[in-house]
Amino acid sequence: MKVTTPVKHVLVEDHFWKKYKQIVANEVIPYQWKALNDELPNTEPSHAIENFRIAAGESNGEFYGTVFQDSDVAKWLETVAYSLRDNPNPELEKKADEVISLLGRSQAADGYLNTYYLLKEPNNRWTNLRDNHELYCAGHFIEAAVAYNETTGKNEFLSIMEKYVHLIDQVFGTEEGKIKGYPGHEEIELALVKLFDVTQNEKYLRLAQYFINQRGQEPIYFREEAEKRKKIDTASTWNDEKNINFGLGFEYQQAHQPVREQKEAVGHAVRAVYLYIAMADLAAKTGDSSLKETCEILWDDVVKNKMYITAGIGSAVNGEAFTCNHDLPNDSMYCETCASVGLAFWANRMLRLDANRKYADVLERAIYNGTLSGMDLDGKRFFYVNPLEVNPFQHVRKDQQHVKVERQKWFFCACCPPNLARMIASVEDNIYTQTDDTLYTHLYVAGKVETTLSGKKIEITQSHQYPWDGDIALTVNTGEPAHFNLALRIPGWCQNAVVKVNGQLISLDRLEKGYLIIERVWQQGDSVSLHLDMQVKRMRSHPLVSMNQGQSALQRGPIVYCIEEVDNGANLAGLRLPKESEITSQFKEDVLNGVVILTADGYRVAPSNELYSSEQMELVPQKITAVPYYAWCNRGTGEMRVWIYES
Amino acid sequence: MKVTTPVKHVLVEDHFWKKYKQIVANEVIPYQWKALNDELPNTEPSHAIENFRIAAGESNGEFYGTVFQDSDVAKWLETVAYSLRDNPNPELEKKADEVISLLGRSQAADGYLNTYYLLKEPNNRWTNLRDNHELYCAGHFIEAAVAYNETTGKNEFLSIMEKYVHLIDQVFGTEEGKIKGYPGHEEIELALVKLFDVTQNEKYLRLAQYFINQRGQEPIYFREEAEKRKKIDTASTWNDEKNINFGLGFEYQQAHQPVREQKEAVGHAVRAVYLYIAMADLAAKTGDSSLKETCEILWDDVVKNKMYITAGIGSAVNGEAFTCNHDLPNDSMYCETCASVGLAFWANRMLRLDANRKYADVLERAIYNGTLSGMDLDGKRFFYVNPLEVNPFQHVRKDQQHVKVERQKWFFCACCPPNLARMIASVEDNIYTQTDDTLYTHLYVAGKVETTLSGKKIEITQSHQYPWDGDIALTVNTGEPAHFNLALRIPGWCQNAVVKVNGQLISLDRLEKGYLIIERVWQQGDSVSLHLDMQVKRMRSHPLVSMNQGQSALQRGPIVYCIEEVDNGANLAGLRLPKESEITSQFKEDVLNGVVILTADGYRVAPSNELYSSEQMELVPQKITAVPYYAWCNRGTGEMRVWIYES
Ligand SMILES: [Zn+2]
Ligand SMILES: [Zn+2]
Repeated sequence: MKVTTPVKHVLVEDHFWKKYKQIVANEVIPYQWKALNDELPNTEPSHAIENFRIAAGESNGEFYGTVFQDSDVAKWLETVAYSLRDNPNPELEKKADEVISLLGRSQAADGYLNTYYLLKEPNNRWTNLRDNHELYCAGHFIEAAVAYNETTGKNEFLSIMEKYVHLIDQVFGTEEGKIKGYPGHEEIELALVKLFDVTQNEKYLRLAQYFINQRGQEPIYFREEAEKRKKIDTASTWNDEKNINFGLGFEYQQAHQPVREQKEAVGHAVRAVYLYIAMADLAAKTGDSSLKETCEILWDDVVKNKMYITAGIGSAVNGEAFTCNHDLPNDSMYCETCASVGLAFWANRMLRLDANRKYADVLERAIYNGTLSGMDLDGKRFFYVNPLEVNPFQHVRKDQQHVKVERQKWFFCACCPPNLARMIASVEDNIYTQTDDTLYTHLYVAGKVETTLSGKKIEITQSHQYPWDGDIALTVNTGEPAHFNLALRIPGWCQNAVVKVNGQLISLDRLEKGYLIIERVWQQGDSVSLHLDMQVKRMRSHPLVSMNQGQSALQRGPIVYCIEEVDNGANLAGLRLPKESEITSQFKEDVLNGVVILTADGYRVAPSNELYSSEQMELVPQKITAVPYYAWCNRGTGEMRVWIYES
Repeated sequence: MKVTTPVKHVLVEDHFWKKYKQIVANEVIPYQWKALNDELPNTEPSHAIENFRIAAGESNGEFYGTVFQDSDVAKWLETVAYSLRDNPNPELEKKADEVISLLGRSQAADGYLNTYYLLKEPNNRWTNLRDNHELYCAGHFIEAAVAYNETTGKNEFLSIMEKYVHLIDQVFGTEEGKIKGYPGHEEIELALVKLFDVTQNEKYLRLAQYFINQRGQEPIYFREEAEKRKKIDTASTWNDEKNINFGLGFEYQQAHQPVREQKEAVGHAVRAVYLYIAMADLAAKTGDSSLKETCEILWDDVVKNKMYITAGIGSAVNGEAFTCNHDLPNDSMYCETCASVGLAFWANRMLRLDANRKYADVLERAIYNGTLSGMDLDGKRFFYVNPLEVNPFQHVRKDQQHVKVERQKWFFCACCPPNLARMIASVEDNIYTQTDDTLYTHLYVAGKVETTLSGKKIEITQSHQYPWDGDIALTVNTGEPAHFNLALRIPGWCQNAVVKVNGQLISLDRLEKGYLIIERVWQQGDSVSLHLDMQVKRMRSHPLVSMNQGQSALQRGPIVYCIEEVDNGANLAGLRLPKESEITSQFKEDVLNGVVILTADGYRVAPSNELYSSEQMELVPQKITAVPYYAWCNRGTGEMRVWIYES
């Protein structure tokens, strides 16, 4: 198994991502800080920090919030850690240090750290892994601790979490006397691999392996746990009602069978991708080929059968879950922001397992489309659910009340905004991976990377106006000449690429899994130019996707477009885009913070007086204007659709 | 207001409808009789007859069933009454007489007759009009009693019901001491008009008017009733939970405002159309122009904004209700058989109010499509929900579990099968209406009508192979020459009609609201020939119906077609019907009991390896075969769709 490893020192100087990273630093982090501290007017209190104060004995009161309220604090700390990488901010770091110190003071003597159980049910730790998110919260804190250690070099947070993990390791396992359980919401597995990465302590890897291997083994742990729970004094949860697991059985938690036997992506989409991330991580760390193969099968199932063109996943609100192949309704789906963020993270891990363009293509599709759509351009409002079609009747349909037609302020249950924030704050972690002698460039994000290749320190810069422009320049800085491979991804969406090294054409005849491998002895100042043709593509769906037939979606480079009422008038379903119409691209500085918009000559079906008619349709010429999907609903509410009827 | 009146003596000798009437007589009525008497193996007991035996003191035991269980008995009696018209069956009539006699014995001394309240809550009569269907059941018994009296001339049933209505009239009204309530499920209003028709007792008309006028007046009765109910000892109902009226408010029962202020069809679709029937009836009887105008506004709202091409209504399972304009999903709708049956009955009443083709066009659309689809060709299995599109993933979607992919045996809650049965058994009531001197022919159903026109006894026969063939022959039998008008509907779907009287062409230049009025002194044996061109129409939807764009539905004469997997292979959404393809019609004796099938040269999109692709689609030539929608799913289960993608 030829795996690649992450590259640490990457600085983003990209006009597109830098803007988003600044929004996270300047808007999202301070806003969430206020939320965590109940300082937002007219908003339901979070109580998340206060819960820790009470647990530390420094405040009076009772626990308040969801069972996973702690994880909001964890995600904030993780985002802060990434943001501090290239945005030093002593004041913010001090706040973070104080929170970490508070975590330490609220930790139980044996290492346990979860305010819900510490305050509400001190005798019932680990009695409802199915629903109560203890291990999930632990996982988020571990991720945050690792990130904070990596950015700041400080150890306090990591020590707190290692102490907690030590306890978890004593509690869970197949050995006599241990609980044979695993999390109802996966997360700690992937976090433990990160903890191993930073500590090199094999115990953490073994614990992750245990959670992965035990999942779905008969007898199913959650069934036994539910029986046991009847004998203790504990509150019943949302999932104790009639329709357990939303009628999805243990598929809801991907616990219906051992993970290596799972051939189809099922259940809650966020849970699923978090599991798959850990599986890919373990396959890469341990060389477990059965896990790798399972990951590949599940990947193909998601990407070939269950993924929206925006990289949205989760076709149904019921269980926020995957449904069956090709069931991709555009107006009633879930497509949670978190799920696309998780898909991006999964793609990132698959790329480490196997530097194959197909993973980078989905990674890129996710970060430029179905994740970013979850936030407005100011970082102030958020979508949890990301529809691909909003009709005039959308907001009054009772069965689609989960689909909001405009972004909402920070929610009480705030999973998506901080998840998106940490993805943006760490976007640089997706650009490169490497082996000893090869640097893979998966994404084109302007900036600088420093790493060691073939034993030599190398710096490479990318500069360009991606994703709006496909002309990319790379410059190699190397003190002395260095022999290494530069592997450049030729994106799957690009049929026409031109690569030159110091002005000399390089043949693209032999790509390795979609990457052009340029092997040479690089000299200081060597330049690589890459031209990726960004002709607008009319994307069409597989014929089994019944809802998208007769329609095309416009894509330019990695950007999926949509049409909005504000540009095209009402009744977007009445527009027709002729197959032969030329589509014009134009960068507009003043539109949506600067985007390429698309225009084409099309038609509008003239409204008739009848609901059904055999009369010839009257087509009225109309210019059709499309804007990037991620930026929809930034100019008021209205209709939107990604799939445009053709004529 | 120029109203027309029903014509009584109509004999059906139509190959299409005679077959269905025989199925009702030979299959549905005996089967339902067994159901009512708990004689079906492996089926949940109905207990409906047994409830009456217990109420009569002739059996021991307890009430069992829904609060509207009685209505199953009523609908059976009503269907029997219609069926006996032209299918004399002494044995069946004896059974009916015995049931009627049992009803009489179970009736309370004061006339009250409802087994749920008699047996379960004797002290709580009229305390939950919102949910408990007392007046609804009474309405169905009144309809049955009227029908039974009209067919058999017997009075017992009618007397029982008049006694009950006398009690209801004493209980309800605006006068001091009376309950100012009205039914939660409309039905008794239209039944009272029928009772007036057969008795000419104005009291019944006034009671119907009271129920109609009181509906939706402030303070809303159901709100006050719910408050009062808190103080009595009564069981809570499905509708006492959090989501009262499915979140639809009093729109669910069309009680949100006085009926004359209602401008949009809202709420439970069956309730709605039953209300509108009574409103149209009262408008016709009393000349109430405000009611007539409201009916016209509501009609246009349904037909221009909320009706499927099959005449299905009710776009959402939530509340089995109307939603907003143009919200017509094909795979998740409700389209209850009962609702389309009710729409047909409403059209029938609108035609009496105003002999306008637009009503007859919908009547015809309903009886040949969205109602009949509710029963298989053998009368043994039934759809409650009538989808227009079934995809491979349909049956596993949790949010669409109300949509069955094959017809089911008689259900425990058996509203649709008997409703459809009574529609079929009385289909002749829809063919004609008349004034003193004009006979309107609304439907082309072969057979004989006897009536009096301009004071003369006239008999007219229709003979043809409608709906498969558009050549219709009418023959006038009149003892002596008679001066009257024959008004023939030229269907809205027909652009090319030719009418001859005794071989002589009649101009169609002047139609009166879609009817050709032939005024002459008719002689014995005069013949009228009517040729209705049945060229296949490609129907398209209004551009606001987002889900149907780029697709056409095939219609020939009144028959709406669909494509099925059994004829076309799997993945029907992958088929393409070119706009210019010729569509061939062919009568096939051996297919689906004899139907015209349609074939056309089309294409199939070749499946690609990718979910989304910008490659040119590969189109493989394929013959496309369409069959009548009403007959779908009679040759095994599989995909089906009405709307076919065009190319
Ligand atoms: Zn989320
Ligand atoms: Zn029904």
